[in-house]
Amino acid sequence: MAGAVANGAGSGGWVPRPTNPMVTPLLTDLYQFTMAYAYWKAGKHLDRAVFDLYFRKNPFGGEFTIFGGLEECIRFIANFKLTEVEIKFLRSAMPTCEDGFFEYLSSIDCSDVEVYAIPEGSVVFPKVPLMRIEGPAAVIQLLETPFLSLVNYASLVTTNAARHRLVAGKSKNLLEFGLRRAQGPDGGISASRYCYMGGFDATSNVAAGRLFGIPIRGTHSHAFVSSFMGLDDIIDRTLASSDGSNKCEDFVSLVQNWLARIKGAGSLSGTFGETNLSELAAFTSYALAFPNSFLALVDTYDVMRSGVPNFCAVALALNDMGYKAAGIRLDSGDLAYLSIETRKFFRAIEEEFGFVGFGKMNITASNDLNEETIDALNKQGHEVDAFGIGTYLVTCYAQAALGCVFKLVEINKQPRIKLSEDVTKVSIPCKKRCYRLYGKEGYPLVDIMTGEDEPAPKVGERLLCRHPFNESKRAYVVPQHVEELLKFYWPGTSSNPREELPSISEIRSRCMAHLDRMRPDHMRRLNPTPYKVSVSAKLYDFIHFLWLNEAPVGELE
Amino acid sequence: MAGAVANGAGSGGWVPRPTNPMVTPLLTDLYQFTMAYAYWKAGKHLDRAVFDLYFRKNPFGGEFTIFGGLEECIRFIANFKLTEVEIKFLRSAMPTCEDGFFEYLSSIDCSDVEVYAIPEGSVVFPKVPLMRIEGPAAVIQLLETPFLSLVNYASLVTTNAARHRLVAGKSKNLLEFGLRRAQGPDGGISASRYCYMGGFDATSNVAAGRLFGIPIRGTHSHAFVSSFMGLDDIIDRTLASSDGSNKCEDFVSLVQNWLARIKGAGSLSGTFGETNLSELAAFTSYALAFPNSFLALVDTYDVMRSGVPNFCAVALALNDMGYKAAGIRLDSGDLAYLSIETRKFFRAIEEEFGFVGFGKMNITASNDLNEETIDALNKQGHEVDAFGIGTYLVTCYAQAALGCVFKLVEINKQPRIKLSEDVTKVSIPCKKRCYRLYGKEGYPLVDIMTGEDEPAPKVGERLLCRHPFNESKRAYVVPQHVEELLKFYWPGTSSNPREELPSISEIRSRCMAHLDRMRPDHMRRLNPTPYKVSVSAKLYDFIHFLWLNEAPVGELE
Repeated sequence: MAGAVANGAGSGGWVPRPTNPMVTPLLTDLYQFTMAYAYWKAGKHLDRAVFDLYFRKNPFGGEFTIFGGLEECIRFIANFKLTEVEIKFLRSAMPTCEDGFFEYLSSIDCSDVEVYAIPEGSVVFPKVPLMRIEGPAAVIQLLETPFLSLVNYASLVTTNAARHRLVAGKSKNLLEFGLRRAQGPDGGISASRYCYMGGFDATSNVAAGRLFGIPIRGTHSHAFVSSFMGLDDIIDRTLASSDGSNKCEDFVSLVQNWLARIKGAGSLSGTFGETNLSELAAFTSYALAFPNSFLALVDTYDVMRSGVPNFCAVALALNDMGYKAAGIRLDSGDLAYLSIETRKFFRAIEEEFGFVGFGKMNITASNDLNEETIDALNKQGHEVDAFGIGTYLVTCYAQAALGCVFKLVEINKQPRIKLSEDVTKVSIPCKKRCYRLYGKEGYPLVDIMTGEDEPAPKVGERLLCRHPFNESKRAYVVPQHVEELLKFYWPGTSSNPREELPSISEIRSRCMAHLDRMRPDHMRRLNPTPYKVSVSAKLYDFIHFLWLNEAPVGELE
Repeated sequence: MAGAVANGAGSGGWVPRPTNPMVTPLLTDLYQFTMAYAYWKAGKHLDRAVFDLYFRKNPFGGEFTIFGGLEECIRFIANFKLTEVEIKFLRSAMPTCEDGFFEYLSSIDCSDVEVYAIPEGSVVFPKVPLMRIEGPAAVIQLLETPFLSLVNYASLVTTNAARHRLVAGKSKNLLEFGLRRAQGPDGGISASRYCYMGGFDATSNVAAGRLFGIPIRGTHSHAFVSSFMGLDDIIDRTLASSDGSNKCEDFVSLVQNWLARIKGAGSLSGTFGETNLSELAAFTSYALAFPNSFLALVDTYDVMRSGVPNFCAVALALNDMGYKAAGIRLDSGDLAYLSIETRKFFRAIEEEFGFVGFGKMNITASNDLNEETIDALNKQGHEVDAFGIGTYLVTCYAQAALGCVFKLVEINKQPRIKLSEDVTKVSIPCKKRCYRLYGKEGYPLVDIMTGEDEPAPKVGERLLCRHPFNESKRAYVVPQHVEELLKFYWPGTSSNPREELPSISEIRSRCMAHLDRMRPDHMRRLNPTPYKVSVSAKLYDFIHFLWLNEAPVGELE
């Protein structure tokens, strides 16, 4: 079976199938198959084509992007093979096409496709190819839509996660809570994976935890709280102590005693009256189920008058039994104010009852959080330790799509260009090499693309970097370090060693390291400095030669 | 196997698994499992709970929403069963939970769950339950996240598609081209399905065509055009005529002759000079492959100076051989202007060469289209027959998420309410019935929710409809027609007949019929009139009784 051959190709090992079983060769636009037929009819299907996959503009008003989705692309091509059922469907969809074409389709795999790519999790910039894909024209066209579908959202949401990490700071816990609001089930699963890659600490999504080994987190919802009518709902009231040395026969009474003591305490008396008993029952019940990790959602009825005092009563009762409560979650209202008031309450508990550390109890905040609200919270001051972020993160609400494209840059060793009245849409022709040049202070200075046969930039040697389309923008650079960006990920017929696919935590570490390495002004939220992307002088000249050659000359009337 | 029993339950037939194999019981938030454990520990897991699934606000600044995703929810519960592997993972994720709980989890299915829902494809409004789900508290919680994940995006993108249909008008062809920009692979597949449901005519997505029987469309890309160097690339130049009666040995020359004739024609001379030969070769080659359905992308080099004349030369040559070209696609530039100029060119061809109907040649437009740009094109005037819409449609760029929620409204026959400082977030308690009341002119007037045991509104009988939270907003209505909204879709232990799941084209027809039936001022793009959603006087009183009962009383200091 040819697919199996392709999968084992080069020096790398076997590559598993795409995570989502729906990712098959039919997950593509019909025109990829109609073009494949037209190439086949014209005898051009084996023409050796080189395509670049790149994006034109950084998302979210920023000046950087994180590349995600590479592993899924490699899994896709490693297992690329049309089944008989799929071929049968294509025959019915393209009834005028000749039989020979479908025989050809049955035969193809990606064993003669070469993929170079920037490692997943890298900081990347517009116009520089994230992937360079080379192989038979008809086959490469069939990869266009699946690759874009696998890279576009992955890179967008990884970037969004990284931006949330940057604004929240390194010390905060970031939890992805987006499954229910994501764009469909694997929007949710992809979001969990790529948000972790972009710097989140955990997800609520159990399936993603299982698939990718991401830490999972979760406690209870408002419905759990309101499902309790009162303390009578709790039948089994016993709780063994943490070390097993004793047993509390009536944990409910212990909680009630603590609630009375809190109410009576000098610094706390008068801050609340009767707390909600459904809520107290729900918290007590949850603590009986999870005495080691009690974290309560405190805003079902009223945060300061009910949720927080009820939580503290249960936490203090747990403490009597040798357990340490985990904290609270706020899911509505003014999070800055409520977190500060809650912190004061916790500190007062610490003081009143000599409970060392209670003041530092974890406060998690959720409810429609995004980059802007976290930034606003930072400016106002708050006492939140962890942010649970859903909708805005996973749907990339601020900008729901990244415009990655897949453009032909060479065919049969002839460079090709795609023109447009909009200069930002003109493609950069030629099979290229790409380098990142670092300056004296260790920051990346500029990315440069060159023709494939040009010599690589050398450390310490002055080099002219030109804007690809604006003749006046150019600069000399003397790099202190030169990094070739495109690595070899899929071997075609070559036997050269290919890059391993790293684990998700290795990719996450690369991403965090890359973010740390960038000059801060490129990364700031407001008016970030654009990072420079350039071409060599030779490539610049060639682009403009080809452009003039292909563009029709107008006739003024 | 209990799952199999559940699947065959009631009078309905067997229900297939969810379309996406990744939709499993683990596709949920961890807290659903931790809550299930706490319910189980408290002996509350079998408490009979009723949850409503609803949204709070119509998307896209509009005053209506289309409900999508119901069939996938029914497929999910029909096949709900945790596998041993899944249980094993849960054990590792929740190591402090007792064995008995995992035995309980192994045993559950949805055979005692009842689902009432509004039919998929219906026009729906905020606060009215799209689905009412009843069953054991622990099981229903496990359904929350998957149901939201299956309904939120489905409803959002169906609504977006319907809005595009409304602005484009009934006569235009609408093509969904979004796969490459969708939020992940099944974002793309779901988009194709639900856009068709919301009124699109076809998709470019082959997998969606195969899965759902949606018509698929596609021709060629810019890369296909630029992959040709010139006419020498075409080896086999023969073309048999449509009726098989003769054969053209050199179709390329026939095309070149036509190009020369167009250039020489009085009304066309001077509008263009030398056209791009790569493009001419690509068009000719594509026509040789698909002589019956030749549609050319004309903007790779220059629409009016190259693409359109090249297309016309090929179309006229095809006509000589008995074939009718299908049209052109514009993918950049000023689509209003270019479509009008192209139409003029087509009409001039019709005149010059007496080619009846050439002036009506199909013009498809694509390139970052959305509701606003189509509206702007309509206002400017244009000659576009079909719109290909991608990014903005499938990612719901204007509003990337719909905030469906899943709220407990009753447990063990006790009504429950969820309070919030934000009144729009207060839930409407009680197991409810929902009706749509129609007026004299046949338009829906108002939706009303009542307690389960209240008598249904009667035709011709005056009824007070109250805003659920604003005491001053109320109105008497005398309905001319009363429609009960929630139908019986999943039977629990009942043997009552359940609704069949209709085909996608039946759902599409319902959606189109519902859109037609609405009063136009609710549907317009600018300042639409809100449709009224109300509760009965009795339910109003009960909501406010419960609210006062649950809210803590403040103490002013």
